[in-house]
Amino acid sequence: MNLLITGGAGFVGARLARTLLSRGTLNGRPINRVMLADQVPPPADLAADPRVQAQTGDLLSMCDSLAAEPLDIVFHLASAVSGECEADFGLGLRSNLDTTRALLDALRRRTEVGTPPVRLVYSSSVAVFGPDPAVTMPAVVADDTLPTPQTSYGTQKLVCEHLVADYTRKGYLDGRAVRLMTVTVRPGKPNAAASSFFSGIVREPLAGLPAVCPVAPDTAHPVSSPARTVEGLIAVAEASREAFGGRTAMNLPALNVTVAGMLDALEAVAGPAVRARVRFERDARIAGIVAGWPRAASAVRASRLGLQPDPDFATIVRQYIADCEAAPDGARALQGLPR
Amino acid sequence: MNLLITGGAGFVGARLARTLLSRGTLNGRPINRVMLADQVPPPADLAADPRVQAQTGDLLSMCDSLAAEPLDIVFHLASAVSGECEADFGLGLRSNLDTTRALLDALRRRTEVGTPPVRLVYSSSVAVFGPDPAVTMPAVVADDTLPTPQTSYGTQKLVCEHLVADYTRKGYLDGRAVRLMTVTVRPGKPNAAASSFFSGIVREPLAGLPAVCPVAPDTAHPVSSPARTVEGLIAVAEASREAFGGRTAMNLPALNVTVAGMLDALEAVAGPAVRARVRFERDARIAGIVAGWPRAASAVRASRLGLQPDPDFATIVRQYIADCEAAPDGARALQGLPR
Repeated sequence: MNLLITGGAGFVGARLARTLLSRGTLNGRPINRVMLADQVPPPADLAADPRVQAQTGDLLSMCDSLAAEPLDIVFHLASAVSGECEADFGLGLRSNLDTTRALLDALRRRTEVGTPPVRLVYSSSVAVFGPDPAVTMPAVVADDTLPTPQTSYGTQKLVCEHLVADYTRKGYLDGRAVRLMTVTVRPGKPNAAASSFFSGIVREPLAGLPAVCPVAPDTAHPVSSPARTVEGLIAVAEASREAFGGRTAMNLPALNVTVAGMLDALEAVAGPAVRARVRFERDARIAGIVAGWPRAASAVRASRLGLQPDPDFATIVRQYIADCEAAPDGARALQGLPR
Repeated sequence: MNLLITGGAGFVGARLARTLLSRGTLNGRPINRVMLADQVPPPADLAADPRVQAQTGDLLSMCDSLAAEPLDIVFHLASAVSGECEADFGLGLRSNLDTTRALLDALRRRTEVGTPPVRLVYSSSVAVFGPDPAVTMPAVVADDTLPTPQTSYGTQKLVCEHLVADYTRKGYLDGRAVRLMTVTVRPGKPNAAASSFFSGIVREPLAGLPAVCPVAPDTAHPVSSPARTVEGLIAVAEASREAFGGRTAMNLPALNVTVAGMLDALEAVAGPAVRARVRFERDARIAGIVAGWPRAASAVRASRLGLQPDPDFATIVRQYIADCEAAPDGARALQGLPR
């Protein structure tokens, strides 16, 4: 079985690759090759695996050559993030719409010479949902809630959900679009995603650093741990079309939390001194973007695949700490944790 | 006031142009120029109007030059039709997605040099709605029903609705997407739209010709007369943003009919001999496309603009007959009508 992961050097992509390589099989078939396509080379541990092949460069210009390789399943995760897309409209269109379109068309052309359609798992986002003046967003967004995105990122994700559905209907792909919840706790540095603070307010205090929360404590949001997110991507890749159900996008499971609840969990796991490193300072740009996102999500279709949300946020904090402890350079990330 | 109508030589576009030129004003301002962009030249009566300027050619390659002209309001009607898009996937993507994207980007670039955003009325379609295995389509589709299109045409229209909304949110446009119902009775020849028979079963028997209905008599569908459709496009162009309400697409008013009801109305207006020229012969390709369309639609937002559906189908048949009687070459179109 030959896999392609776009965005394969990113946090979710690399974690997905490690999980798949460690399992060794997908859908009961051995994994022979995992191509990791990204703007940057993959982490050293992945690059060292003989089954891994890195394709480093601009994805838009690589789609044709990637599609010329033997491929069974594609995880299309590569994306410009929400903050970038708001700041640079053209960048978002190019990275999220034009690139996905080019990938879909490259995969379509394979089928025109008789190659069976590739299974494609497309990472959409809970950011497709939002409150429009003409549409009331429900308190909990479901698989079949009307998406009215309030960011360019959410718009581009929604547009690609529908393209994936139509290429699938035509038999050019076996596409499955899934809406990722905000993945937290992400390691490393803050990124340009408006949701970056959902990781920062846990990660920075655990590293002994001050953290700024740009939104109010009662800000509610659906999140998912990295492990559950990767579990969801793999389950969707392994599902039959019947089990996936329809061609519309599926919400992945969400743990619905508030910022205050996240900090309570951080304190319960790591103590009050860690929590005290977080201060609140409103950032109007970030708060404006987040205000257009849903406050909670449900995932009925995912639950039918056996997928469940993280049990609580303390479990997510403990998973992050365990991940850091297992990493070769993880000690610095936990410098602020009392022992 | 300078207007652009893409698809301006088509049936709806030409009727819109005639109506606007006859009014002489839009939004209380005199209409100085109406550019009609289409693959074919406009009808002779329009070409003869000194306010009309024809731009004939491939719209995708004309977007930049069109956007370089003084422009206040654009009606973007140009589109490949549903049957064409199912038969030629690449053609649909190019005509309906790439061309709209190019037009939006050309209009966006105007604003980047300080030109005020153009008001754009985008003709989407009731074909954005459909039954997906994961989503039950309501008996009556509303403004805020979840669209899960079951054709490439519907997908491309939906994608462009969301692009228009996002370009509007960013201030690059003042965009208003409206979903046209199936426009009937269209004059002239059948076209490649799967909905073409909704005109054919009235037009052909009135012309004394046999007509084939490819779907069952109980097939239900939301339709609109040409006059009400044009009225809706103009009302939306004249509405304030507040009155339009939100950035999501608005359904135009629908008269919800069945094929049997249409034929009853035809008989009531034109007699049993006319109706008898219609026979039923199922066409699996057409019936399959139509089965994925809604059976009825509502239009609450449009009604707030004062827009109402046609009162009944007999009125639509009488309007078609009156239009033919007023046209210089209309006598042939009514050769089958008993006098």
